Amino acid sequence: MNGLKTSRCLSSSVMLLKRSGNIQVKVTGVKRLSTAEAPATLTKENGKTRVLTMETLNPQVKAVEYAVRGPIVIKAGEIEKELLQGMKKPFSEVIKANIGDAHAMGQQPITFLRQVVALCTCPELLDSPVFPEDAKARARRILQGCGGNSLGSYSASQGLDCIREDVAMYIEQRDGGVPADPNNIYLTSGASDGISTILKLLVAGEGLSRTGVMIPIPQYPLYSAAISELDAVQVNYYLDEDNCWAMDVNELHRALSTARKYCNPRVLCIINPGNPTGQVQSRKCIEEVIHFAYKENLFLLSDEVYQDNVYSPDCKFHSFKKVLCEMGPEYFNNVELASFHSTSKGYTGECGYRGGYMEVINLEQEVRAQMMKLLSVRLCPSVSGQVAMDVVVNPPRSGEQSCEQFTKEKKSILSNLAERAKLTEEILNTVPGIRCNPVQGAMYAFPRIFIPPKAIEEAKVLGMAPDMLYCLRLLEETGICVVPGSGFGQKEGTYHFRMTILPPSEKLKLLLEKVKDFHIKFLQRYAALDAMSR
Amino acid sequence: MNGLKTSRCLSSSVMLLKRSGNIQVKVTGVKRLSTAEAPATLTKENGKTRVLTMETLNPQVKAVEYAVRGPIVIKAGEIEKELLQGMKKPFSEVIKANIGDAHAMGQQPITFLRQVVALCTCPELLDSPVFPEDAKARARRILQGCGGNSLGSYSASQGLDCIREDVAMYIEQRDGGVPADPNNIYLTSGASDGISTILKLLVAGEGLSRTGVMIPIPQYPLYSAAISELDAVQVNYYLDEDNCWAMDVNELHRALSTARKYCNPRVLCIINPGNPTGQVQSRKCIEEVIHFAYKENLFLLSDEVYQDNVYSPDCKFHSFKKVLCEMGPEYFNNVELASFHSTSKGYTGECGYRGGYMEVINLEQEVRAQMMKLLSVRLCPSVSGQVAMDVVVNPPRSGEQSCEQFTKEKKSILSNLAERAKLTEEILNTVPGIRCNPVQGAMYAFPRIFIPPKAIEEAKVLGMAPDMLYCLRLLEETGICVVPGSGFGQKEGTYHFRMTILPPSEKLKLLLEKVKDFHIKFLQRYAALDAMSR
Repeated sequence: MNGLKTSRCLSSSVMLLKRSGNIQVKVTGVKRLSTAEAPATLTKENGKTRVLTMETLNPQVKAVEYAVRGPIVIKAGEIEKELLQGMKKPFSEVIKANIGDAHAMGQQPITFLRQVVALCTCPELLDSPVFPEDAKARARRILQGCGGNSLGSYSASQGLDCIREDVAMYIEQRDGGVPADPNNIYLTSGASDGISTILKLLVAGEGLSRTGVMIPIPQYPLYSAAISELDAVQVNYYLDEDNCWAMDVNELHRALSTARKYCNPRVLCIINPGNPTGQVQSRKCIEEVIHFAYKENLFLLSDEVYQDNVYSPDCKFHSFKKVLCEMGPEYFNNVELASFHSTSKGYTGECGYRGGYMEVINLEQEVRAQMMKLLSVRLCPSVSGQVAMDVVVNPPRSGEQSCEQFTKEKKSILSNLAERAKLTEEILNTVPGIRCNPVQGAMYAFPRIFIPPKAIEEAKVLGMAPDMLYCLRLLEETGICVVPGSGFGQKEGTYHFRMTILPPSEKLKLLLEKVKDFHIKFLQRYAALDAMSR
Repeated sequence: MNGLKTSRCLSSSVMLLKRSGNIQVKVTGVKRLSTAEAPATLTKENGKTRVLTMETLNPQVKAVEYAVRGPIVIKAGEIEKELLQGMKKPFSEVIKANIGDAHAMGQQPITFLRQVVALCTCPELLDSPVFPEDAKARARRILQGCGGNSLGSYSASQGLDCIREDVAMYIEQRDGGVPADPNNIYLTSGASDGISTILKLLVAGEGLSRTGVMIPIPQYPLYSAAISELDAVQVNYYLDEDNCWAMDVNELHRALSTARKYCNPRVLCIINPGNPTGQVQSRKCIEEVIHFAYKENLFLLSDEVYQDNVYSPDCKFHSFKKVLCEMGPEYFNNVELASFHSTSKGYTGECGYRGGYMEVINLEQEVRAQMMKLLSVRLCPSVSGQVAMDVVVNPPRSGEQSCEQFTKEKKSILSNLAERAKLTEEILNTVPGIRCNPVQGAMYAFPRIFIPPKAIEEAKVLGMAPDMLYCLRLLEETGICVVPGSGFGQKEGTYHFRMTILPPSEKLKLLLEKVKDFHIKFLQRYAALDAMSR
C-alpha cells in the first residue's frame, strides 16, 4: 500500500480537529494532492485491481462531513431495523429529532398547496367539483406557463416565469415595497442547491488567494460540506452563546483579519433565523453586518429559510434585502447579496418537494450569464417543487374560497411550533448541567450540556467527540436521535446537541423528560467513575 | 484591468478550440490559477468594487459549456419574445427541436403515472371512485414508505426503499434474471445528477495523474460540462460516422494510449442508445468494450436513458450489466459499472419530474459510504420524481385494471416515435449536401451537413463555428431551433446539427421540408458568393 503524504494535504494555518467518528469544527485545507504521487493501481481484490478506492477517491469528497445525516443517524437506522426484527431494547421506537422534517413528525400538509399540485399533475381534476375554484385557477395559470401545458416538460433553467413573478411580488410585499425583479429570482431544488451554486461561482484562487468563506459557528453543515467539496477555505466567526447566539461585529472583524493572513475572504454567510441556534437577528445587528460587508467588500449570502418561523413575541424577521435598501442607494446599488428560501420549512414543511428560490442582487451581467449557463447543465429544478414554492409565496388571499381554511391551518401549525419552542426551552432549563437559550425562531434547540471529565476521557479513548459519545448513549438508552454539537461547530471545550422542536407537544414533553432522566443518570455515572478513580 | 495569464491555464497536450460564440470539442486543461495572481479588487462600478466579476469568477465554471441550452437557444428565446411583441418575421412560431422535451412537443403523459402521483399528493383522492384500484394500491404502498405517510417528508438520501426494490426487480426482469440488489440502486434527480456524482468521486490527482474521462465524440454535453466543472481531463474517442456511429475498440485503444501521455484515464463513458447520434450498440460491441475496460482498468459509466427508445427492427437494447454478467464471474465480480436511467425519456417523457436512478456495482464498501455521505448533503431527490420513477420501472401488469390503457398509450407513443425516426432520416437524405445515419434509437437525428467554403470563411470572420452560423441562419429564417454539431463535438472539418424527432409527424414533415428549402438556399447563396469572388 502506498503511503500518502497527508501532511502535505493541510494548509498551515487551519487546524486539524478530526478523529474517527468525530465531527469537529471543519478542516478545509485538503488539496487535491493525495493521489498525485500514488500509482493508479492500489488495492487488489480477487487478484483484480479496483479503479475507485479510498486511496484514489477525490480527496475533496473525502473531506466533506455532514452531521445531520451522519454516523449517529446511520446508527439510529440500524437500531430501527433491530427493533423491527424484534430485538429487545429499553424503548419501542426511535424518535428522529435530528432533522427538520415536519411531515415525518406528523405535521399535516397545507390543503391548498397539495390541491394545486394535484390539479397540475392530473389536469382532468380541473373538472372535478371536489376542488375549490381558486386552486383550479392557480393550477390553470401555472400549466399555461409549462411547455405543452404539462408538468412533465422541462421549465426554463431559472424556473417558470409566472412563478418567479409571484416570488418577486411576495418579496416586495414582505419588504414593504422594496422592488424585486423576477429576473433576479432563480428557482432551486431546496435552498441547498442555490447556496452551493452561488458558492461555486465564488470559489477561485490558490494559496493565499484561495477564496475564504465566513460562516457562523455553530453553522448548518451544508456550508462546511460545500466549502470542503469546492476546496475553499472555511473562516469561522463565533456566535455569542451568552448573548442568545447573537452575531457580533467585533467577532466578524477578528475572524476576517485572522483569515486574511492565509486566504482571500470574499463571502460572508448568515443564517437568520439561526440554524442550529434558533436566534432571530435584530435589525440593528443586520445593519452592522451589512455595513461590515460593504466596507470589507464581501459577497453576502443570507439563508432566510426560517423567515416564517419566528416565535418569540419580542422578535421580528427582517430580510437583509429590506435593511440593505433602507440603508440607502450607496448600499442597495452595490452590496452583492444572495438570499434563499425554501418550501421545506416555514409552516408548509414540504421537504420532499425540494422547492426553493434565491434572489440575487447586484450581480454583474456577465456573471449572471455564467450562472445561467451553469444552471442550464442540470436542466431545471423539479417542476412540482416549483409549484409548491408558488403556493408558499402566493397563498390564498382574503376573499378567495380557500383563504379561511388556509389561514386556520397556517395559524395552527405556527402556534403549535411556538408552544413547542417554549416548552423545549423551559424543560431543558430545568435539567442540572443543561442550559438552553430561548428558541426565538427556526425549528431547533441547541442546548449546552455539561459533560463530566471522565466521560470526556472515555470519548477520547473511543476516538470520538465527547458530545458524540453523549448522543450515542442517549440514542442507545432512550431511542432519541439528536445531533452532537461537534457536527455544527462550537467553541472549544463546550458541548451541545441539536434537537428539533417538531414532535407533537405531548410526545415532545415525554421526549424531554427522557432526555432529563438520561442526563441526570449520565452525570451520576461519570461522577461516580470520577470518584472511583481518585 | 489585470491581465490574466491565460496561457498558464492550458495543459500542454489539450488543444484550445474556443472562439467567442463557438462551441467546439472541449478544452479541459483550465486550472484554478487565473485568480491566483489577481488582486481581490478588480472592477469598479459607481466607484464601488464588485466581489464577483468575470475576473474573479471560478475559472472552472467559466470553462463549462452546454450547447443544448446554449447561445442558439438563448437567441430562440429572444425571437419568441419579439414574435409575441408583434415583430414581423418570415415565420409565426419558433419550433424548439433543440432538446428532448417530449411533453413540450405535445406528447401526452401516461395516465397511470400521473394518477399515482396525484393520489400520493392528495391522499383524500384515495376515496374517489374516479381513480382505478391499481393506482390507489400503488399510491398506498409508496405513502407507507414515506415519513408520516407524506410526499412532503425527506426520503432517505438514497431514495425510498420500496421504490429501490421496484427498480431492482425491473432490472432483473429486463436482464433475464441477472440479480440486482436494491442496495446498489440510488434514486437521483434525472440521470444528470447521478452521472455528476459518480464523476465527482472519480476525479483526483494533479499534472500527469489528473483523472482522464473518456467520452464519445459526438457526446451529450453534460459530460464535457461536468468534466470542466470538476477540472478533470476530457479524453475523446470518436464514433464511426461511416459505420452508423458505431463504437470501435481500436479507436478506444488509440484514444487511451494518447491520453496516457498527459493524464490518468480512469473512466470510460458510453451513451447507448446514442445521444446525439441515435445508434444502438450491438451485443458484440458491448462485449468488446467491457473487455477493454477490464483489461485497461477503467470504471464504466453506461448512460442508458434511452433504453426504451429503440426503433430499428434490426436493433435490440442490451444493458452493459447483462452483458457483463454473461461474460462470466471474472468480469461480473470485478468491473466497476454505474448505469443510469431517467423518467425524462422512454415513453413517459416526464422531464419536469427530475426522476432517475443509477445502479452501481462492484463499488468498494468504504467508497460507497463516502458516496452516501456526499448524497446526504443534498438531503434527497424530489420525492414526486421518485414516484414517477417507480411507475416507469413498475407499470401496470397484465390483469390489472390500468394495464390495457397503459399498454395502448405506451405502444402509441413508441410507434409514433419510430415513424418519426424513419421520416426524419428519409427526408433529410433527400437533401443534397445532407447525409443522415439511420435513427436506430434515442430521440435525435444528427445529420452531417455540407457547408460551402465561403460560409466557413464568413463564420471565421464572425468568430463562430461554421455550423453555429448555419443553425443561426436556420433559426432566423425559419424559426427552427436546432443545436450545432460543434456543441457535441465532431471530427475536425465535419459539420452537423442535432434535432429532435419529437414534433408530431405532420409538423415534423413541414419542419423537415423547411430545413430542406433552407439548406438548398444556403448552398446557393454561398456558392454564388464563391463564384463572385473568383
